Amino acid sequence: MKRYAFFISDGTGITAETLGNSLLAQFERLEFERITMPYVDDEEKAHAAVAKMNQAAQDSGQPVILFDTIVNKSIRAIVDSADAFKVDIFATFLAPLEQELGTESSYSVGKSHLATDSHDYQARIDAINFALDNDDGARTRQYAEADIILVGVSRCGKTPTSLYMAMQFGIKAANYPLTEEDMLDLKLPKSLSEHRDKLYGLSIDPDRLALIRSERRANSRYASLKQCYLEVEEVELLYQREQIPYISTTARSIEEIATRILADTGLQRRLKT
Amino acid sequence: MKRYAFFISDGTGITAETLGNSLLAQFERLEFERITMPYVDDEEKAHAAVAKMNQAAQDSGQPVILFDTIVNKSIRAIVDSADAFKVDIFATFLAPLEQELGTESSYSVGKSHLATDSHDYQARIDAINFALDNDDGARTRQYAEADIILVGVSRCGKTPTSLYMAMQFGIKAANYPLTEEDMLDLKLPKSLSEHRDKLYGLSIDPDRLALIRSERRANSRYASLKQCYLEVEEVELLYQREQIPYISTTARSIEEIATRILADTGLQRRLKT
Repeated sequence: MKRYAFFISDGTGITAETLGNSLLAQFERLEFERITMPYVDDEEKAHAAVAKMNQAAQDSGQPVILFDTIVNKSIRAIVDSADAFKVDIFATFLAPLEQELGTESSYSVGKSHLATDSHDYQARIDAINFALDNDDGARTRQYAEADIILVGVSRCGKTPTSLYMAMQFGIKAANYPLTEEDMLDLKLPKSLSEHRDKLYGLSIDPDRLALIRSERRANSRYASLKQCYLEVEEVELLYQREQIPYISTTARSIEEIATRILADTGLQRRLKT
Repeated sequence: MKRYAFFISDGTGITAETLGNSLLAQFERLEFERITMPYVDDEEKAHAAVAKMNQAAQDSGQPVILFDTIVNKSIRAIVDSADAFKVDIFATFLAPLEQELGTESSYSVGKSHLATDSHDYQARIDAINFALDNDDGARTRQYAEADIILVGVSRCGKTPTSLYMAMQFGIKAANYPLTEEDMLDLKLPKSLSEHRDKLYGLSIDPDRLALIRSERRANSRYASLKQCYLEVEEVELLYQREQIPYISTTARSIEEIATRILADTGLQRRLKT
């Protein structure tokens, strides 16, 4: 019987989920039934959460694992009454932090933090719009404004990486698809060579590329193993010749690709939090 | 003098950042200089991280605050030697979890977790592509495949919300811009009315909308207060008449809009973690 993991918050629940999933990932052999309950911000919802946890505990024959980030004390008191093993994120860490920082936290005074910050909000929306406007080489005249320009063959992961960098870090990432013509030209297109210091390459295992391309255009030259091997070989030669740093996207999550590029380039996040 | 906060990990650093930022957000009156160091996965990088923390501690005259999620024990030992107040996320919670779950964690045996999961990876990429292909009413013939269709006036937040739902939850979210014509027609376009149960409305404060539109097209009718008030009033009447649930995006982060829609609709995440 799978054990239940609950992520409960009076906000979005994202902190409880992120931390909880990271901790549970350390128990590879176990499987969990995961339930997120965000916006548990009044006593009625707290009682409903308790009922749901108790039902899950009864069904699985074991207390649920509870990751919570509820700030309000009376709501916490209700949630605490469930049949749960509690990983109490805020209570565990905030008291020692208060002592170290020499000040009380909003948590202690029972005030919830407002998540929106207008600078970050605007920077993020601007970056998302930039990524969309400059996706897949759609336009190149805004490259002066780009923080980074991702290059690579078709379907190697440029678009999701650009969007993630915008969404998570507020970084303006353009992306440009390198074609066979670009690679055989033995020089970069002018729109790219003008911004050489912003270029970052993506590469990919050719077998994986053929698989991905086949889902879009099965049995095409474009998706053939031969073509994929050729393009990847050529693009890596181009990266080396032009001294463009690059990373393989194979077997890497979007998060990992994006954060490795940041670590490698020293590019700074544009969002404060 | 601002205090330094370091987020250090042998992986992406995202867990350390998310938890750390949530905890620091509880100290509203304090400002922190934030530094993330991901992929600290060998002793040389660990010593570099220590040097950087010690320098920051010296510059600010106080120990840095350190949030870390390093798994490897010898690397941890080095990082621990820095002049830092340590919030030790894994060490604090994993021992009690091991006891509760009756098994050792990978952390205890010194093994790092691999972040990619092929089912989740593919579901996520598919959802991102779906959001891009079905952005802004670009096409409506894939709506049968959509998990949700966000509707609303131009520039109210549909695109970032769709992309976030795809990226974070693997949910296939289309979005469709409601125009004055749609609203004055007194009935929904057929492409939408066929999928009425998937519709979710976004609304926005008209003053805020005028501000956002002005950044794209200053002094236009489109961005005028009068036009924005008219469109928002009409669209909310439409939602009420057609019994489409809706949420205001004003003063809400993308995370909050997306998670509130999930909570309201009961729509399930398609990613396991």
